[in-house]
Amino acid sequence: MFSLLKNNLFQQVKKQSTLKSFTRMSSSQIAPLDSSKLRIELNKNPKTKLPNDQLIFGQSFTDHMLTIEWNESTGWSNPEIKPYGNLSLDPSCCVFHYSFELFEGLKAYKDSKNQIRMFRVDKNMERMNKSATRICLPSFDTEELTKCIGELLKIDKDFIPEGRGYSLYLRPTMIGTTAGLGVGTPDKALLYVIASPVGPYYKTGFKAVKLEATDYATRAWPGGVGDKKLGANYAPCIKPQLEAASRGYQQNLWLFGPEKNVTEVGTMNFFVVFKDSKTGLKELVTAPLDGTILEGVTRDSILSLARERLNKDEWIISERYCTITEIVSKSKTGELLEAFGSGTAAVVSPIKAIGYDGEDIDVPLLPGEQSGPLTKQIANWIAELQYGDVESDWSRIVA
Amino acid sequence: MFSLLKNNLFQQVKKQSTLKSFTRMSSSQIAPLDSSKLRIELNKNPKTKLPNDQLIFGQSFTDHMLTIEWNESTGWSNPEIKPYGNLSLDPSCCVFHYSFELFEGLKAYKDSKNQIRMFRVDKNMERMNKSATRICLPSFDTEELTKCIGELLKIDKDFIPEGRGYSLYLRPTMIGTTAGLGVGTPDKALLYVIASPVGPYYKTGFKAVKLEATDYATRAWPGGVGDKKLGANYAPCIKPQLEAASRGYQQNLWLFGPEKNVTEVGTMNFFVVFKDSKTGLKELVTAPLDGTILEGVTRDSILSLARERLNKDEWIISERYCTITEIVSKSKTGELLEAFGSGTAAVVSPIKAIGYDGEDIDVPLLPGEQSGPLTKQIANWIAELQYGDVESDWSRIVA
Repeated sequence: MFSLLKNNLFQQVKKQSTLKSFTRMSSSQIAPLDSSKLRIELNKNPKTKLPNDQLIFGQSFTDHMLTIEWNESTGWSNPEIKPYGNLSLDPSCCVFHYSFELFEGLKAYKDSKNQIRMFRVDKNMERMNKSATRICLPSFDTEELTKCIGELLKIDKDFIPEGRGYSLYLRPTMIGTTAGLGVGTPDKALLYVIASPVGPYYKTGFKAVKLEATDYATRAWPGGVGDKKLGANYAPCIKPQLEAASRGYQQNLWLFGPEKNVTEVGTMNFFVVFKDSKTGLKELVTAPLDGTILEGVTRDSILSLARERLNKDEWIISERYCTITEIVSKSKTGELLEAFGSGTAAVVSPIKAIGYDGEDIDVPLLPGEQSGPLTKQIANWIAELQYGDVESDWSRIVA
Repeated sequence: MFSLLKNNLFQQVKKQSTLKSFTRMSSSQIAPLDSSKLRIELNKNPKTKLPNDQLIFGQSFTDHMLTIEWNESTGWSNPEIKPYGNLSLDPSCCVFHYSFELFEGLKAYKDSKNQIRMFRVDKNMERMNKSATRICLPSFDTEELTKCIGELLKIDKDFIPEGRGYSLYLRPTMIGTTAGLGVGTPDKALLYVIASPVGPYYKTGFKAVKLEATDYATRAWPGGVGDKKLGANYAPCIKPQLEAASRGYQQNLWLFGPEKNVTEVGTMNFFVVFKDSKTGLKELVTAPLDGTILEGVTRDSILSLARERLNKDEWIISERYCTITEIVSKSKTGELLEAFGSGTAAVVSPIKAIGYDGEDIDVPLLPGEQSGPLTKQIANWIAELQYGDVESDWSRIVA
């Protein structure tokens, strides 16, 4: 393995210097990602669209996909929209061996005027570039990729399901495609976007979940890559999830460190609401972006909306760690009001209990309902923006 | 994301119970990996073999590859040896999004009687199963896979280069091939083995390397997967490697924790030799297998040989952590004798300096040579066993 690393590294350094001088000579030959060069090959065998009630998240896809190849010496190739279909890759490609892979998740919506909207796509594009840079895959002009995705949406617009709660889930993905077993920076990559029509997470209102506070497995670590949307962060978390499930919990609540800081829920960010019984002040708490926490777009939306819309005399909005013992203690004194996860799929996902140290910490819900009041409020605020009922610059109209 | 997790998890639990009852009914229908069912399709367009001096690690491959598909409900399919060629996979496959991937690295050798030998293949097979289990991919009967690999070696025997230092590098790989974006246990997988003829790491004797002690990035942590050979452990380490390279160091020496324990070198295990100036005793030290250290086969071979062959009156063999400050301090007192990395490619890789805190810790080498005496001794011991000059049960004769 070492020889690969070393040889490849030297080749890399050599390639980089070659590339640099080459760039200086004729930078125009290193092509940027350019939406004006998009080529389109329409699918001659269109699929039958599924009715809304048969949509399962990420199981069916639209007729087309967007692909853009990258090569270290020539840059980004012409973007292509072509029929959805298999990728053909050499079995030695670095994506299969060393996890050169990253992805994004965002949604496009049809609004009441039948316009297509993407929600906060700029945040996803920005994060995608951060993920790419972290594992030495190429970055790109985010506006150019957004335009290409817009064209994919126009071509596959009939796949965007209508109705509140329905949307088209977009999955931008980048993989390293260098063939060969050397461990080094990929000199070839493929950026592709596939799209899956999806229904509401909660078809009949919220359903609150139970989490198991997990300290025997660790999702992320300082100096690691837990803040990036890399494939590497996912496979290792499945086994702990199955273990939690075997004890009746739907998800892990990842704890960190000897102080048992609460970090994330499964693959969502975590929010908790406390109330100070002395002052009466409420506090919305989520973990700070310290390098171990995924920089969730929904997390960001929630913090922005909470800061803008919640009464400042009643609320404190905190990006700080709380420990599981703080949650236990505030539960006992009646100061634990609410908890929820946040992510693209469910927007907010209410939590009804947290299993810790052999006992369940009960989290209050509205009487006869499956969420707390803030969870419900936030879900509505965000849906209004996503479906364009309330206009904002978070919603980008594609067509 | 959460909906995927949850839905998928429930499907998973459901599938598992279905599977269990099904297994009880007719376990014979869940097929084990069975080498007697191997099917062979010979390559009709054999490649021209490269001369030994043109071999680059992991860049050229033999005419054939071994593939075995797995499906949760039917088990392992018939193993196939077929022409080396591209894999065709749906762009939503879980290997591209969530890093369901793992690999092994081992070598086959031609001995002086022209027999084909695999070195410690049982250790690699055992570790491959451990890696698979950790990310919910299927395990298999190791002897059956070893037999299939043996058949691949017989068919591609003319690709095994002859001569000391030359060998055929084998790359068993397993990927999750479930199509769909749900984050859950894969219900389909592909196990494949490709093979690359390789030359000696050091064509003209050892060349000692300089390492940069790295504490700003973390390779592995407690509760993580650093002890498994998963793709997820590799991509995140490339950027720190390039940073070390930019400062003139060939590799990272990964430190861990506030005490700055020395863990591994790049993608190799780390060994250091100290001498106690009071007692005169020498100590060979490597990090213990505490869950954060890759369970290197070469590491195990070195420890076994050292315990068996080094004079017990002069040597202590320790699986313990040493800190970078212990290395600094022993360097100052003349008690740092030698250091090297260990891995499949180079076997042992001598270290001449470690950069830490702005200064280089010099590691002694033999006068006029590029390694210390133990590094050289161990390289010889292992080569004799690999090439069958000395018989042992570590060497498995294939044909």
